[in-house]
Amino acid sequence: MHIRVLHGPNLNLLGKREPQIYGSTSLAEIDARLQALATELGCSLDFLQSNHEGVLVDAIQDLGSTDGVLINPGAFGHTSIALRDAFLGTGVPFVEVHVSNVHARESFRRRSRLADLAVGCIAGFGPASYELGLRGLVSHLGKG
Amino acid sequence: MHIRVLHGPNLNLLGKREPQIYGSTSLAEIDARLQALATELGCSLDFLQSNHEGVLVDAIQDLGSTDGVLINPGAFGHTSIALRDAFLGTGVPFVEVHVSNVHARESFRRRSRLADLAVGCIAGFGPASYELGLRGLVSHLGKG
Amino acid sequence: MHIRVLHGPNLNLLGKREPQIYGSTSLAEIDARLQALATELGCSLDFLQSNHEGVLVDAIQDLGSTDGVLINPGAFGHTSIALRDAFLGTGVPFVEVHVSNVHARESFRRRSRLADLAVGCIAGFGPASYELGLRGLVSHLGKG
Amino acid sequence: MHIRVLHGPNLNLLGKREPQIYGSTSLAEIDARLQALATELGCSLDFLQSNHEGVLVDAIQDLGSTDGVLINPGAFGHTSIALRDAFLGTGVPFVEVHVSNVHARESFRRRSRLADLAVGCIAGFGPASYELGLRGLVSHLGKG
Amino acid sequence: MHIRVLHGPNLNLLGKREPQIYGSTSLAEIDARLQALATELGCSLDFLQSNHEGVLVDAIQDLGSTDGVLINPGAFGHTSIALRDAFLGTGVPFVEVHVSNVHARESFRRRSRLADLAVGCIAGFGPASYELGLRGLVSHLGKG
Amino acid sequence: MHIRVLHGPNLNLLGKREPQIYGSTSLAEIDARLQALATELGCSLDFLQSNHEGVLVDAIQDLGSTDGVLINPGAFGHTSIALRDAFLGTGVPFVEVHVSNVHARESFRRRSRLADLAVGCIAGFGPASYELGLRGLVSHLGKG
Amino acid sequence: MHIRVLHGPNLNLLGKREPQIYGSTSLAEIDARLQALATELGCSLDFLQSNHEGVLVDAIQDLGSTDGVLINPGAFGHTSIALRDAFLGTGVPFVEVHVSNVHARESFRRRSRLADLAVGCIAGFGPASYELGLRGLVSHLGKG
Amino acid sequence: MHIRVLHGPNLNLLGKREPQIYGSTSLAEIDARLQALATELGCSLDFLQSNHEGVLVDAIQDLGSTDGVLINPGAFGHTSIALRDAFLGTGVPFVEVHVSNVHARESFRRRSRLADLAVGCIAGFGPASYELGLRGLVSHLGKG
Amino acid sequence: MHIRVLHGPNLNLLGKREPQIYGSTSLAEIDARLQALATELGCSLDFLQSNHEGVLVDAIQDLGSTDGVLINPGAFGHTSIALRDAFLGTGVPFVEVHVSNVHARESFRRRSRLADLAVGCIAGFGPASYELGLRGLVSHLGKG
Amino acid sequence: MHIRVLHGPNLNLLGKREPQIYGSTSLAEIDARLQALATELGCSLDFLQSNHEGVLVDAIQDLGSTDGVLINPGAFGHTSIALRDAFLGTGVPFVEVHVSNVHARESFRRRSRLADLAVGCIAGFGPASYELGLRGLVSHLGKG
Amino acid sequence: MHIRVLHGPNLNLLGKREPQIYGSTSLAEIDARLQALATELGCSLDFLQSNHEGVLVDAIQDLGSTDGVLINPGAFGHTSIALRDAFLGTGVPFVEVHVSNVHARESFRRRSRLADLAVGCIAGFGPASYELGLRGLVSHLGKG
Amino acid sequence: MHIRVLHGPNLNLLGKREPQIYGSTSLAEIDARLQALATELGCSLDFLQSNHEGVLVDAIQDLGSTDGVLINPGAFGHTSIALRDAFLGTGVPFVEVHVSNVHARESFRRRSRLADLAVGCIAGFGPASYELGLRGLVSHLGKG
Repeated sequence: MHIRVLHGPNLNLLGKREPQIYGSTSLAEIDARLQALATELGCSLDFLQSNHEGVLVDAIQDLGSTDGVLINPGAFGHTSIALRDAFLGTGVPFVEVHVSNVHARESFRRRSRLADLAVGCIAGFGPASYELGLRGLVSHLGKG
Repeated sequence: MHIRVLHGPNLNLLGKREPQIYGSTSLAEIDARLQALATELGCSLDFLQSNHEGVLVDAIQDLGSTDGVLINPGAFGHTSIALRDAFLGTGVPFVEVHVSNVHARESFRRRSRLADLAVGCIAGFGPASYELGLRGLVSHLGKG
Repeated sequence: MHIRVLHGPNLNLLGKREPQIYGSTSLAEIDARLQALATELGCSLDFLQSNHEGVLVDAIQDLGSTDGVLINPGAFGHTSIALRDAFLGTGVPFVEVHVSNVHARESFRRRSRLADLAVGCIAGFGPASYELGLRGLVSHLGKG
Repeated sequence: MHIRVLHGPNLNLLGKREPQIYGSTSLAEIDARLQALATELGCSLDFLQSNHEGVLVDAIQDLGSTDGVLINPGAFGHTSIALRDAFLGTGVPFVEVHVSNVHARESFRRRSRLADLAVGCIAGFGPASYELGLRGLVSHLGKG
Repeated sequence: MHIRVLHGPNLNLLGKREPQIYGSTSLAEIDARLQALATELGCSLDFLQSNHEGVLVDAIQDLGSTDGVLINPGAFGHTSIALRDAFLGTGVPFVEVHVSNVHARESFRRRSRLADLAVGCIAGFGPASYELGLRGLVSHLGKG
Repeated sequence: MHIRVLHGPNLNLLGKREPQIYGSTSLAEIDARLQALATELGCSLDFLQSNHEGVLVDAIQDLGSTDGVLINPGAFGHTSIALRDAFLGTGVPFVEVHVSNVHARESFRRRSRLADLAVGCIAGFGPASYELGLRGLVSHLGKG
Repeated sequence: MHIRVLHGPNLNLLGKREPQIYGSTSLAEIDARLQALATELGCSLDFLQSNHEGVLVDAIQDLGSTDGVLINPGAFGHTSIALRDAFLGTGVPFVEVHVSNVHARESFRRRSRLADLAVGCIAGFGPASYELGLRGLVSHLGKG
Repeated sequence: MHIRVLHGPNLNLLGKREPQIYGSTSLAEIDARLQALATELGCSLDFLQSNHEGVLVDAIQDLGSTDGVLINPGAFGHTSIALRDAFLGTGVPFVEVHVSNVHARESFRRRSRLADLAVGCIAGFGPASYELGLRGLVSHLGKG
Repeated sequence: MHIRVLHGPNLNLLGKREPQIYGSTSLAEIDARLQALATELGCSLDFLQSNHEGVLVDAIQDLGSTDGVLINPGAFGHTSIALRDAFLGTGVPFVEVHVSNVHARESFRRRSRLADLAVGCIAGFGPASYELGLRGLVSHLGKG
Repeated sequence: MHIRVLHGPNLNLLGKREPQIYGSTSLAEIDARLQALATELGCSLDFLQSNHEGVLVDAIQDLGSTDGVLINPGAFGHTSIALRDAFLGTGVPFVEVHVSNVHARESFRRRSRLADLAVGCIAGFGPASYELGLRGLVSHLGKG
Repeated sequence: MHIRVLHGPNLNLLGKREPQIYGSTSLAEIDARLQALATELGCSLDFLQSNHEGVLVDAIQDLGSTDGVLINPGAFGHTSIALRDAFLGTGVPFVEVHVSNVHARESFRRRSRLADLAVGCIAGFGPASYELGLRGLVSHLGKG
Repeated sequence: MHIRVLHGPNLNLLGKREPQIYGSTSLAEIDARLQALATELGCSLDFLQSNHEGVLVDAIQDLGSTDGVLINPGAFGHTSIALRDAFLGTGVPFVEVHVSNVHARESFRRRSRLADLAVGCIAGFGPASYELGLRGLVSHLGKG
């Protein structure tokens, strides 16, 4: 089982900026924790972070033998129909995660262009959102 | 560490009705799986399901030595300000979970009266939403 | 054929209060007229009135050999997603009736949380709404 | 007691088209069933179907000795203020019926330009909606 | 100078129905008063009332040597884009009048599909609205 | 019969500015034409123009033996609840006029805080709006 | 003169939780202060607090010789049409009070399902809101 | 293959009025160009223009051996649920065309009551919209 | 302790007009009753009524040794951001009162530009609203 | 005459994914069919597909001797003001096409950021939408 | 070149109140800094501050030889159509400035009744907003 | 002091296209004028224009020793939450400028995703908006 981990815009800043909201864990540490968990769960991962919507669309289209996607779409989750269409077009199962609790912030963060297509959504647990998301995705794929 | 698990209205029907949406796992099985996971994570649980909003409000007010609440508020999550006020009043950390993907159903299910107060929210993973929620809550409480 | 008749909050006041809107027939008289009609139509009835949403949810869940529900949800029809979920969960056919013409009153009375799930809806005929509803429900069940 | 039965646009298609929504009973059969019920209830009927709003307005204005109107306004019920004004202008008691459950279809079908003026409204019982409506109207007129 | 006077749906009921809103003057009396005023103002008139939107559209298209239109569109003023397009298409100057004060009634009567195209609008003066409208239209045409 | 003519803010600019919208007639000329018409109709007038909402409120409160008010509220008609309350408080009959066609301009000009309380409303006839309004008001008061 | 004092959900937490919003006075102290004031004003009181909507509805229906109700509906004031209908059904005069200033909190707290039926509303004075409300209610009843 | 061409209200004015929006081609010329194209594409046509909604509804119901409809609904496309229901009732494939670019005009012209039922929609190409629509419809029917 | 009492537009009409809404007590009587109560409560008062928004803004800015403001803003409470800014700018504690129950009147009366800044709000008790407001304000200032 | 054909995000998936919505024709086949039609119509084409909004903006800015643009903006048509501004800035005539009927899908697909600037819009004809669009664009340019 | 500087309501409080939002510079100091800058830029100024909308309207109407207006409308900018009409009526070029960043405060501060008529708008730079506005206005007038 | 100047999509067209809105000054000229002003103000600048959202996000993240950002976000200012998050993430002070008066154009141009985070906003002064923005930013940074 192979899973692609996608990080949307500004997530490369994790751990460096706004720690009161996003915590002090860096994206590299998150990827390392995900890698450790993947080993435990018996699956492999690849990772991509981009501030460019088109790069993320390309990455969803060009999945190779990927079985599922774990995505923190960041800002694009609230606005990008192109990402939505990429998921619609490929039909790949995916889980949407957010580090912060999007329900407790600006109102526009409560709208997701992706959530109704996702297997499930997780928000608010800090870096642990990713690990819970990976568990949830692997559990879902194991049932398929 | 002690955690209260609250199930809102109609969740006693889990596993019996609408399996295409909610799956075939019963509430008793979910509670059993949560109990097993709690043992693994080193915490204790108690359980309550009710179709009565007031009973759930009472249960949030009367927490004793409970450290956190794992709640699937069901329909009340979309409408109950009384539940919101109970959480506001007690300040107990809680996680909101939903079995189905509320974002893919009627539009009124996308509004939560609780989510902005929660540690985090999880939806769409079937019965596994509860287990992910328990992991997330325990992880959060462990950091406190 | 057995039918459960459910009366929502404040319907126990029928006949005593606001006769200019609700008429002077008491709930007991309505139940008696329904009983007489049921005999004519060859079905049996049981009755429940409650001001407690949870009691009504319980009554929809615990149907035994009931074939259909005739419900005047009163105020809960406009607000209760828990009642909606109970009907969704059990799948029992039901008819929604209102004594007054809800379209001619406050705007919030025009929204029903139940109507799109119902076999049909009847409003405005005073106590006769119930009898028309029973005829409609029995007719529907007879076609099943 | 004389009652005019008005059928709005496209109801002449009943029984021929979209039977999954409207059933297989033709408009002629509905009129025959209404005629039979009218005999039982001791009233007389006349019938008009039109796809022309103006024809229906004319028919509401020119009531002669009609005591009440049973109308399925079809699409015009959602848009026609002219029909509304005709009812306002004549003050004739009327009942609004719909064959399908308008609450379970496109959102614009939930708005009625007539319902707040009606004695009562009935929707969702298929052809039986008409018979229930006639019963309700006769019952109402009998009380006057 | 020749002016066409158009009366929309249900205005043939004027004087007979709802006198508390529309007064007791009949449409024939209004037309007679307009005729008298037209003589005084030195212009000729023709009259048409219809409950059929298409008849009114035809009458706006087929103007012959008409210099202006005085219209009480009734209900169609609130809904008919076809009437609007007829005025847009012919470019004939027109004045919109209403017998009752549309601002003091149901909210949908405050929207006019025609008013922004009109020379001017007059509402609330009872039958005198027509006479004021004729004066205003003649005054406008006299300036052209 | 005595009538007070009130002109709201910026109407002192009439005839000097924006003649393409408001025409080239000055406010003094309008008042003169109104005075001439009043003589013809057998009533007396007094006049007040102010850019101060409070001055206009005072003028509506302090009516002496005034029988009616002819008001062009200008911008205050769209925003002033204080003017509305002054009319509500005194109950004096009034007519609202506008020089330009408010329906063909910015959307906020379509809302009037006064119109539902007025005898009637007239807009779009240029300075003639005032004369039509005076005729309408006198006609209304003559019927009282 | 006898008055029933009703406290809605979570008000049993008063004085214990969120003192920055609700102050440190307990519900028992408030009741005691009300009792003292009632003695001064010459009326008697009874008290009920409940987290159950149905219990409050029952208490409004079953008034015995109660002359008026002083209610802090808490969260139910924003959502409960059943409470509204109970007041509509019994017609008992009541005053609505809130401890905190509901206008300065979440937007949904600005909507009341009861306020338009109340004698009057008081919010923001802390525990003193109750005493002001009792004074206002007694004053109102004394005029009846 | 036989196709019915329907022109809605005011389209008989084409070529005569508002040429800056609709061009100078008359409806007769458009029909002639469509006839020439139909010959090229190997299908037959019949034509109907009406300012009466009911006439158009009748024409959609009474299709005989018509395989598809090419309709420029004009103003009715924005308001007529009766036309929508006629298409729903007959299930005939149709294409909606507009001469002008409806997206660049008043906002209400952006709403179509028909478009979601159509095979496809074409707007903005002047008279050529019809020819493109005929090509699109014939192409669609050829695939059936 | 010194308190300024401000009355907004049209409140000088109290007791003379619309007694069915505002009662028959004049503003002078209200001020006298407030003066009597102030003596009892041990504070001094000054009074100002104005129909001019600017005069009220000036009065809020120029407070001298005033400790608090009791204001019935009348119509300005629903529209005046200038009054809001004056209170924001001076930070003086104030109580907002209304004679009538603003929740039971036109919808625009439910919006207050001031209420979220106030210590508290009181509406619906007739002239007694002022006395309750004074008690509430004095109680609040006594705690400061 | 030279025309640029632009395909927005995810259109490179055409023919491979979601054939029930988009058909089984690949983008390469569409381009080939357009090329053939262009030869017939006597114009030349160039093609670009991109998942990157900026690449498409660049392509609209850098038109060389291009006479018109045929664009299927895909998801960007619903959200991209940058594309709109590029068309506004260059003033190049363009036609907007969609393979599927956007009016029959999610509501956000009914909004276009481009359509009011386009010569015309075509949607719903599958790959034929492109060919109709090319015909429409060439016809439009031929008139210039 | 002569420029009028207008300060709306409550700006006389600048420097004295709410320094965390508006800074500690007084209005007199701002005027002095503007005077110094005007000397540098070679233009003359006059100044007016008022809490009365009518006074500001008068000042915009009575411009004498003023070439432009620099206005901080304060609260009136969000509500006053009278100010808008004064600018519309005189056509004088003006610049709108705000001391605070209106986009970061209450939502109603984001609406301006004036901004679309202004040469330009500046907000958020504290007292420097005025100086930037004067530079912008002078630059604009220099181009005329 | 070092400042980064960012130009969003389509601003490379400045001076070449739509001069009636944007003027005839090219982006290179604007940059030159900014450079000259920067020298006068004693700060250094670097410049970037891009039609790619991701490039701009990268540029905001990778600030090196930049003290502030002067940005004309163009179309992205109305839609890009990614840009917002980049500013939120880095916390760099920035000023938002627009060449045209965004308040006088399409309604969607009145919404900014950035403005509430900015030091201040300037719009409508043509190329001078940039110079005013640089002055404002330098003034702000000088106070830090």
